Amino acid sequence: MTKQFHDNVLTPAALDQLFNEARTYNGWQVKEVSEEQIRHIYDLLKMAPTSANMQPGRFVWVRSQEAKDKLASMASDGNKDKIKAAPVTVIIGYDVDFHEELPWLFPHTDAKSWFEGDEEGRKEGAFRNSALQGAYLMLAARAIGLDCGPMSGVDLDAITKEFFADEPKVKADWVCSIGYGDPSTIFDRSPRPDFEKFNRLA
Amino acid sequence: MTKQFHDNVLTPAALDQLFNEARTYNGWQVKEVSEEQIRHIYDLLKMAPTSANMQPGRFVWVRSQEAKDKLASMASDGNKDKIKAAPVTVIIGYDVDFHEELPWLFPHTDAKSWFEGDEEGRKEGAFRNSALQGAYLMLAARAIGLDCGPMSGVDLDAITKEFFADEPKVKADWVCSIGYGDPSTIFDRSPRPDFEKFNRLA
Repeated sequence: MTKQFHDNVLTPAALDQLFNEARTYNGWQVKEVSEEQIRHIYDLLKMAPTSANMQPGRFVWVRSQEAKDKLASMASDGNKDKIKAAPVTVIIGYDVDFHEELPWLFPHTDAKSWFEGDEEGRKEGAFRNSALQGAYLMLAARAIGLDCGPMSGVDLDAITKEFFADEPKVKADWVCSIGYGDPSTIFDRSPRPDFEKFNRLA
Repeated sequence: MTKQFHDNVLTPAALDQLFNEARTYNGWQVKEVSEEQIRHIYDLLKMAPTSANMQPGRFVWVRSQEAKDKLASMASDGNKDKIKAAPVTVIIGYDVDFHEELPWLFPHTDAKSWFEGDEEGRKEGAFRNSALQGAYLMLAARAIGLDCGPMSGVDLDAITKEFFADEPKVKADWVCSIGYGDPSTIFDRSPRPDFEKFNRLA
């Protein structure tokens, strides 16, 4: 029997933890994130929806000093120290050839054939759906009591070459540090738009 | 003082509601989603991070019979009835000229200048970050006790022309029904990958 949660609004504290009070951190406490926590984040994010269950996201969890230094060398000046200080920074990539996995990921029908010969369409689907997965990842990390620091200011081509060298159809898309945020490193909250600004009822 | 939630794992029931037991629905109970609920979803999703607070997502919440019929006519055969039956289907679009809003959305620095003259870069940033916002939207809907039914099988060019006619730099990206799911309309859960399949520790 499917569990439903109709009209059950999460507690104000849970909504604060996920959305309202969570912040993007630029510095980190010296406190490890365990492999168990990393696996918990993935086990949550993989349950959330992607188109045809394509699950195109590929994740490299950078934790060793050597890998952190390498990744930091491919980041903009403002991001190098953040990556070195964070207990883990995850590289969110996507596999343009995700369709090869569809026979077992989406067994109801021959979804692989929808994508064969259409590399441009696959790239678009992989890019969109791995971004969804990256968002799930951040909210899953927050849901287990960790903070996030997403970053676009990195050299994606260099990261792709270095960290996905064995997977020629995988491309790095962005990176996100995860850990226990240092509250002295957050900026003032940027303004948020009113509903009317970017929404319309039709 | 910044609120922190370190090591506070949400309750199993909350994780079930957000991730583990939530499902994609293909049919809907006859029960309205209120404007208050729609505003609550947006007020949550807008708090989650986008690069340089660019907030590129543009959302049209389709609720009237006329707008539902119009949107359904632009969907694949399998999706037409879902859109007609859902109390609301939101069109997730993105504004390629989001940078025009950065002077007030990201007042700390002149972020607008980073994007001027680089339409290709803006398109990529808007596409990636509006997908993040669409994922936040789905988890926010679940967080207030609603179900989601995301769909890619729609004619995006037609939807863009019809629903963003007055905003020439906004493009529709996908759509998502929201409501009270009919449990008889879900498919068997598609398989989920083990951690080892798409993750690496480095």
